[in-house]
Amino acid sequence: MPGDLSVLLVLDLVGTFAFALNGALTAIRAVDVDLVGVLTLGVITAVGGGIIRDVLLGALPPATFVDWRYLAVAAAGALIAFGFSRQLRRLRISIHVLDAAGLSLFAVSGAGKALELGMGPAQAVLLGALTGVGGGTIRDVLIRRVPDVLRTGLYAIPALLAAALVVITSRVGVDQVLGAPAALTAAGVCFAVRMLGLRFRLN
Amino acid sequence: MPGDLSVLLVLDLVGTFAFALNGALTAIRAVDVDLVGVLTLGVITAVGGGIIRDVLLGALPPATFVDWRYLAVAAAGALIAFGFSRQLRRLRISIHVLDAAGLSLFAVSGAGKALELGMGPAQAVLLGALTGVGGGTIRDVLIRRVPDVLRTGLYAIPALLAAALVVITSRVGVDQVLGAPAALTAAGVCFAVRMLGLRFRLN
Amino acid sequence: MPGDLSVLLVLDLVGTFAFALNGALTAIRAVDVDLVGVLTLGVITAVGGGIIRDVLLGALPPATFVDWRYLAVAAAGALIAFGFSRQLRRLRISIHVLDAAGLSLFAVSGAGKALELGMGPAQAVLLGALTGVGGGTIRDVLIRRVPDVLRTGLYAIPALLAAALVVITSRVGVDQVLGAPAALTAAGVCFAVRMLGLRFRLN
Repeated sequence: MPGDLSVLLVLDLVGTFAFALNGALTAIRAVDVDLVGVLTLGVITAVGGGIIRDVLLGALPPATFVDWRYLAVAAAGALIAFGFSRQLRRLRISIHVLDAAGLSLFAVSGAGKALELGMGPAQAVLLGALTGVGGGTIRDVLIRRVPDVLRTGLYAIPALLAAALVVITSRVGVDQVLGAPAALTAAGVCFAVRMLGLRFRLN
Repeated sequence: MPGDLSVLLVLDLVGTFAFALNGALTAIRAVDVDLVGVLTLGVITAVGGGIIRDVLLGALPPATFVDWRYLAVAAAGALIAFGFSRQLRRLRISIHVLDAAGLSLFAVSGAGKALELGMGPAQAVLLGALTGVGGGTIRDVLIRRVPDVLRTGLYAIPALLAAALVVITSRVGVDQVLGAPAALTAAGVCFAVRMLGLRFRLN
Repeated sequence: MPGDLSVLLVLDLVGTFAFALNGALTAIRAVDVDLVGVLTLGVITAVGGGIIRDVLLGALPPATFVDWRYLAVAAAGALIAFGFSRQLRRLRISIHVLDAAGLSLFAVSGAGKALELGMGPAQAVLLGALTGVGGGTIRDVLIRRVPDVLRTGLYAIPALLAAALVVITSRVGVDQVLGAPAALTAAGVCFAVRMLGLRFRLN
């Protein structure tokens, strides 16, 4: 895969970056940890979902380990969060926006990769949603928080929605596996639903 | 495997249903969550043990993803628990009975599947016990409870016992892999020991 | 692998023993559990890191299940900790020494195994560190403690250091895969850094 900047890979890397920022900022706010702790939680949040996806798909070792770009992007995101946490803190909503972005992009890339490896539509939807919610759930367990996916329905539902859109567009032949417009639309729908839920405190 | 209603599969599906009810009821009681949270914890509790088993066996993707019946049964169980939680609450012991049922059935099906895939007897016993305790342990971690498997010996022991009975009956040739009478006896022993432990508060 | 007492295997088994003692003693101190709970947490702490390593490497079923010696050593360590907890408690530092020993040995054996299975240098360093910190992290999650790997930088760093030393010595041809002197030096460096961090409360 290295060398081939496909749509899936770009989504994955942008999602990795968003989750790395989010995980690192969460570490700074929720637990009093040093640089290594921040880096660790940032990277785990960033690569956790993809590792769960690849383990369940039997695509081992996970892409996160085989392709160095994932770890480079995750580490860069966590380091940026550590260096500019004060500046980022002023943007009060940012931590939720980052989480919603990671959720959306990973739900799409997870569903896309599942289809690529020949999984059926129901499996692809579920694996997509799992990829989206996985990293944040591991993050919350490690800092002893009840995971978002249990606290609000508008976390799993937008992820399932995005993954389902990927499967549907792939089925109706809009693209062979996953084209950029279809992928971005699916991710955008997930992001919008998640942000609306946060804004209006819908549960 | 789809299409073939073997003993293993039936045990697995009944265990899935029991754990789905248990996980969903736990979500309703322990954390204040909505329908999606209840559904999520129910499904995770129901499929968690089997996923751990299949990951460790290298049988990927896990049966839970490949065979739609697992998810259908898990979702149905969680929805029933959500819809009838008040009626089910009156049966005060039910949540423990459901957990014991899932534990017993998964310990047996886990050991049976491990034997089927050519694992040795010690491995099969352990994998069976892990399958039994896995879903409940993930459930407890997600809602921030010390897992039952650490709190009381009479959780792991009955699971190990049932898995050992499966291995012994298979060794002495009572059945090639796993016949219904042997499987039900093993599950029944596990269930009885677990319920006696709960009833007499043995630790 | 059974029958062949290679350097990797010896490191793995000694690390398993150290983590089993540590996990069992943690169970005795942190949560009020019975023999089975102590045994369970000891064994999980002992085999957790190796299972994560083997799952990520796709080397399934994990060595811990295929080779009975891991479980025998893990169970023996946990039982010894249970039987002699009072005597071991007098050695106040011991629980940290045991954790540091497990961390060091697993970081080395994890990196060595990753190289043996053909992973690149960066992957081997990361997998080594993950193997080192994995068991203790699962232990901490199960007893609801913020994992050491998040609380202090001098947990992940020595593990990364040891794994990097393994990769470097293997690259410069000091040994084909992993000779005893190189392995022990790498583990010793990790152990020394970790113990210095604990002694001088460096974060």
